[in-house]
Formats: sequence, C-alpha cells, structure tokens
Amino acid sequence: MFSGYLGELVQQLKKLPGIGNKSAQRLAMHLISGDKNKALLLAESIQNAVENITNCSICNMLSESDPCEFCADTARHKNFLCVVENTQDIYLVENTHEYHGRYFVLGNLLSPLDGIGPDEINFPLLLDLIRKDGIEELILALNPSAEGESTINYIASQLEETSTNITRLSTGLPFGGDIEYTNSITLGNALKRRYSVNN
Amino acid sequence: MFSGYLGELVQQLKKLPGIGNKSAQRLAMHLISGDKNKALLLAESIQNAVENITNCSICNMLSESDPCEFCADTARHKNFLCVVENTQDIYLVENTHEYHGRYFVLGNLLSPLDGIGPDEINFPLLLDLIRKDGIEELILALNPSAEGESTINYIASQLEETSTNITRLSTGLPFGGDIEYTNSITLGNALKRRYSVNN
Repeated sequence: MFSGYLGELVQQLKKLPGIGNKSAQRLAMHLISGDKNKALLLAESIQNAVENITNCSICNMLSESDPCEFCADTARHKNFLCVVENTQDIYLVENTHEYHGRYFVLGNLLSPLDGIGPDEINFPLLLDLIRKDGIEELILALNPSAEGESTINYIASQLEETSTNITRLSTGLPFGGDIEYTNSITLGNALKRRYSVNN
Repeated sequence: MFSGYLGELVQQLKKLPGIGNKSAQRLAMHLISGDKNKALLLAESIQNAVENITNCSICNMLSESDPCEFCADTARHKNFLCVVENTQDIYLVENTHEYHGRYFVLGNLLSPLDGIGPDEINFPLLLDLIRKDGIEELILALNPSAEGESTINYIASQLEETSTNITRLSTGLPFGGDIEYTNSITLGNALKRRYSVNN
C-alpha cells in the first residue's frame, strides 16, 4: 500500500517489537504529518543512543559510561552480585529499593534449542568477576521459566566448588494475587515454600 | 528511571501515538540492545521520509512527488473528486477498488472548539480546484462524527451555488454487523436509508 520513503519507514517501524502493520502505518503517518522537527528529534535520539550506549566491560550492562554507574559506585556493597537477564531488569530491581549490591547482565538465558549456550550468556565474564572480586552472595534474579531454571542450574553447577553463596528469587503467590486465578505450579511453589507466620 | 541518551530516546518514543511509558522503555531497550545498524536504519528512514515527503500542491496529499501520483495520473476520472480527512484515508478508499477519480485531503475536520475553522481544512484550496477543474461530483468521504457532519454541512453550504453534485458516504449497518450490537443511531440511519431489495 505505501511505497517509496514512506513504505521504507513503515517497514523499519514494523521491525520493532509489538508493532504490527497497522500500527507501523499509523506511526509513519504521524511522523510525516506532524511537526517535522519532532520526527527528526526522534531520529536523532535513536542515533545518539545507539552511538553512545555500549556494554560495561565489568558487568555487561548497557550504559553510556564504562564502567557503568553501578560498577563505578563505590558506595555499593561490593560482595553482593545480582545476576539479571538484561539491562532493563536492573532498573526493575533498583525500583524495589531492596538491593544495594552490584549487578551482572547475562544478556540471554540458556536455551540450547535456540543455540544459546554458556558462551552466549557471558558466563566466562561472570566467572572472572566472581574469582577476582570474591563475591559473597550471588543472587540469580532470573525469570522462573524453563530457560531461567536451566540457567540457574548451569551457573550453580559451575560454581559448586567456590565458596560463593548462590541464591535465587523466591517463588510463590504474587502480591495482590488471587488463589482462585493462580496456576497450579505457582500455587504448588507457594505451598512448598510456605513459611511460619511468626517468622 | 532512565537518564542520558537512553532517557532522551524514551521521551521521544513516548510522544508517538499509542506508545506509553512502558512501551517506550521496551522499544528503547530493543533499539540499543539489538543490531545497531537496524536501529540506525530506522533513524535514517524517519529522516528520509520527513525530508522527502511533502504536501501535493493540488490535492494536499502527503507525497514524495508534487503533483502526487493521483493528481499526475491522467487515466483517473478528472471530474470526480473524493474529499478525505487525511492521506491515510486515500489508501483506504483505494483499497475498495470502487473509485477511480481524484482526491482532496482536508487535513482536519471542522472543530470550532479546537480552533479548527475553514482555513485549517484547506477549503480555499478545495474551492480553487472545484472552480478550475469543473468537478462534476464531489464525494465527501468523511467520518460520520460530529466534526464530520459539521464539515459536510459547511462544504455543502459554501458550494450551494455551484453546479457540483455533492454526495456523502452511505450510513447504515456495517457489513457483517449484528443488529443486536448496533447502536441506535446506526440502526436509525439504516432504517431511514433502507432500499428496495429489487433495486
């Protein structure tokens, strides 16, 4: 339906996650119909972000600086390392205000069927960091999915002989959840990990 | 939560229609996490589209060429002019394969409360075109909304003294619609405009 520069723009927008054909057309028309400077500002901010944001050489987080703000922050507990799948997850953990240690970004979860093995999750870099900095507790803040479980199991097995305490996020009912609408695996986990009310 | 170039990118993405805070963050992370060249291609296609697409000086359609493909197409019926709100609507009408005349893009519908008067809907340009080209039928393919009705009434009143036949899209039940779920205005219109089965 759209051709030329407009068609090209629609094609590029369609590659974004969650943007289908109709949305891409609507966004493209919005960009060319409105204030041209606004559209150019968006183009410029994409370029700036892509050209100036890189991976922290210590923790692999996407950051404007290397080392990133968390690795450079001397006030953070150096002996705690929270392992997350991607940079976004760091901000989610930060928002809880429950953690003040450092982070490590895997970039992926293990998924042999998709060709994602130990090298694709930056495990060698993680191992270096643990050996060099003497991590006391390694918190695996990964999704409770098949890939997350494999990754947790792999990391735990590889670190068996170190003295690092390896922990993972609790599983159970989400806050505000309703038992009636909870799937049986979640409910099973919540039962298995039940704890004393007086604790 | 996000700062610097990433924060700026999130801000710019949030300005797009239908993109909230969460979506903007997801899109921004996608752009900086994936293949950098893909993200730069998107930025480039925004720039190309914005810089190369302009309004056709005859029909006001957003187009790479001036006159646009429809105004330049001599095979189109010159005496039929279909008036639409925006460029997208042209493609929707084209997709019906029911129309082979020319188009005119108003850009807006009349909405005095939003400060959109006759000058904002390019009426002077439309009037010029009608006078110059001797339009036989002017089809007002506008939304059946309050703004659409005002615009239809305004255009019709202004052209009262010309010999142009002014028509509008039929109103009634949408194809595949269900009377049970049809609002009473639509059903009323369908009743008012009922036609003979043998027609």
